[in-house]
Amino acid sequence: MLGEVKINMGNTANIITVETSARHVHVTEKDIARLFGEGHKLTEKKRLSQPTEFACEERVNIIGPKSEIKNVIILGPARKATQVEVSLTDARTLGINAPVRESGDVAGSGACKIVGPAGEIDISEGVIAAKRHVHLRPEDAEKIGVKEKQIVQVKVKTSDRALIFGDVVVRVNATFMPFMHIDTDEANACAASGNVEGEIIV
Amino acid sequence: MLGEVKINMGNTANIITVETSARHVHVTEKDIARLFGEGHKLTEKKRLSQPTEFACEERVNIIGPKSEIKNVIILGPARKATQVEVSLTDARTLGINAPVRESGDVAGSGACKIVGPAGEIDISEGVIAAKRHVHLRPEDAEKIGVKEKQIVQVKVKTSDRALIFGDVVVRVNATFMPFMHIDTDEANACAASGNVEGEIIV
Repeated sequence: MLGEVKINMGNTANIITVETSARHVHVTEKDIARLFGEGHKLTEKKRLSQPTEFACEERVNIIGPKSEIKNVIILGPARKATQVEVSLTDARTLGINAPVRESGDVAGSGACKIVGPAGEIDISEGVIAAKRHVHLRPEDAEKIGVKEKQIVQVKVKTSDRALIFGDVVVRVNATFMPFMHIDTDEANACAASGNVEGEIIV
Repeated sequence: MLGEVKINMGNTANIITVETSARHVHVTEKDIARLFGEGHKLTEKKRLSQPTEFACEERVNIIGPKSEIKNVIILGPARKATQVEVSLTDARTLGINAPVRESGDVAGSGACKIVGPAGEIDISEGVIAAKRHVHLRPEDAEKIGVKEKQIVQVKVKTSDRALIFGDVVVRVNATFMPFMHIDTDEANACAASGNVEGEIIV
């Protein structure tokens, strides 16, 4: 029933794998030392679809005014700013106001406590719900006819909960692999179990 | 950016209020007795948008293989079958396989334990994630040009996460008031805080 939308049919370049990002934390070198001890280095467990990123063995607990979520995974490598990415369901559970933001855009975002095995930190900002986005290489972007920061729609056809995501931001970089990232609420809203295919609508 | 969709523009009958249904439980008379005691009557706390339905003072705990969710609200009146409506986020937290189903269609759906102040029950089926739906009166359905059980799309325009829900089932009954119901995952996927407006796309 989603056929009413004008789609550049037959252009298979518009098909993209949609991955679900569960809650996770990015940390600065300074916060790695505070949470895991001086001189600690993140331990890579699994390389992610974006080849510069990896899931770590390290886990932390996230504490908000209302509750705590334990064993939240750290993604490496270290970043310039510590950032906690949660679903809006998580944010409500924690009692934190997490705005929908692009990764790295943390000014004035949510506060929380982060607890690691060697120490804890209070961040006054950094808790966000990730803005849904598509990673593309320059050659993918050219084929599809989109540019960095362009807002597109992505149609996801699952058996029970087909939908079209609006407000999807395009990010283009030579280091990327072509994947769309949504959070767990968004995955559940389209009943996506595991990766699903999406169709970029320009 | 959702403007590509063909919409019956200018037909304000297509605009509907979208309400979020948080997790809740419907119970049979027999299960009211088991959970709250023999002869117990449900206590109405608040009438809902569908005038035959009401939120109750009574609460129960829902237990799955992985965890428990406490203080889940009961909705009255009593029904023919006990039914637990959760989000897919909740289902994963509980460790329950909850299929996406219309209310009342519980055959072969998820199992759980329900704990009340006077006793507990194990249900072998009844845990579902509600299929998103629109309640309409016959006169609304006629204006919009839809029928009972028809599948439509509904466009929701929020500031950060606009989207178009597909697979929305139309339900028509003279006792209904015109409202769309989505669950908390779906509300979060469109960043709907409180009620928002949707546009039915036929």
